[in-house]
Amino acid sequence: MHRFAPALLCAIALISGPAFAQSTSPHGVTAIGPPAGMPAPVGPWGLGARAGDFVFLAGVQGYEADNSLSPDPEARIRRAFANIKKLAESQGAALHDCVRITIYLSDLHRYAGMVDKIQAEVWGSPPYPPRTMMEVQRLFQDDIIEIDTVFYVPQKK
Amino acid sequence: MHRFAPALLCAIALISGPAFAQSTSPHGVTAIGPPAGMPAPVGPWGLGARAGDFVFLAGVQGYEADNSLSPDPEARIRRAFANIKKLAESQGAALHDCVRITIYLSDLHRYAGMVDKIQAEVWGSPPYPPRTMMEVQRLFQDDIIEIDTVFYVPQKK
Amino acid sequence: MHRFAPALLCAIALISGPAFAQSTSPHGVTAIGPPAGMPAPVGPWGLGARAGDFVFLAGVQGYEADNSLSPDPEARIRRAFANIKKLAESQGAALHDCVRITIYLSDLHRYAGMVDKIQAEVWGSPPYPPRTMMEVQRLFQDDIIEIDTVFYVPQKK
Repeated sequence: MHRFAPALLCAIALISGPAFAQSTSPHGVTAIGPPAGMPAPVGPWGLGARAGDFVFLAGVQGYEADNSLSPDPEARIRRAFANIKKLAESQGAALHDCVRITIYLSDLHRYAGMVDKIQAEVWGSPPYPPRTMMEVQRLFQDDIIEIDTVFYVPQKK
Repeated sequence: MHRFAPALLCAIALISGPAFAQSTSPHGVTAIGPPAGMPAPVGPWGLGARAGDFVFLAGVQGYEADNSLSPDPEARIRRAFANIKKLAESQGAALHDCVRITIYLSDLHRYAGMVDKIQAEVWGSPPYPPRTMMEVQRLFQDDIIEIDTVFYVPQKK
Repeated sequence: MHRFAPALLCAIALISGPAFAQSTSPHGVTAIGPPAGMPAPVGPWGLGARAGDFVFLAGVQGYEADNSLSPDPEARIRRAFANIKKLAESQGAALHDCVRITIYLSDLHRYAGMVDKIQAEVWGSPPYPPRTMMEVQRLFQDDIIEIDTVFYVPQKK
């Protein structure tokens, strides 16, 4: 969930959003469109995909509704988790349905403690999902955090 | 899908290739052997695995059929996507069946634009899979790109 | 599977361990508790999760039973794989049921050869799982290796 072009957002939300949400692949992968208040991506990536009993989300950054990134690290990290929650809930999943979370940081020593605190708050109670967290060389827009998740949401049969 | 030892490739393709493709784990994971024109790996990794309704591919680099890496970044990136397409199609999957793509780059500022352009061309049309893309410290052979993917290909029942 | 606080381990193992193993999410994700001889995590992450036919493990480091990390790189890498084997087997999975392995190293040139050798020994025979291996900027506790895996273990029906 990277760089958005704000000028295009309304058009995309109106034109492509619902189409995104409906389109399926040859084998039935359903692309996940942006929930209300979340901009659609402009580029060759999607926000998420549903396939069988699983929902796969893109790497999520801490974008605000107006497409900005807060200068405050804690607010930005909190927002990244809020975005994941919103996307997951749009697919009927709760945070506790997360089966895998990979957190990429620009500075592990600086942000790991904030992530721990915020993740505990956002989840509310254990169990927590299996996690891998590391510092990488560079994230989009030299951002400080990007979070990659998979959720389990069995299809109704 | 890392360093190949060309001298061993023929022997491996003849001896192990078909065996790879057939072998299953205690619970039915099927190893994916190299499609025609793609060398088998020589080392403790496989090209991919099928399990249930999903196909998991190894991190794929931009190897040519003769096991070389093009010195041209754009050609090499294009080849990495072509290799993924070939592997996916060998399992009956289309690119639009991809549910998750993680792209590791050696230089995000330099290569992200090329990746976007090539990925849009290769996919042809949206929706695109959820993506996470980042710059890491070092890839195999100091390569510039490695791409990790998961596909959804329900088993015929 | 990061930093453990040894002083809390007994209490956690007694109080939360079994609860962890039993607890399920709204959609039936089961958190994986620590096998015998492996400390429970103290923080907002779990050791693993079972969902449908798949088991997802957290990033696993080379912790010894006493919660220490061997100063010998080869011993530490070997231990990381042993921990994964133990966790997988606690869920009824064999190493050959692994469908995806991502190995993060602090120094690819230094440790890749060790990983290859140890992984071949631990697996015993091909096929090996699809692998992605890279050097990242920093791991927890400035560790040298962390390994992220997914296993296929179909539910009995």
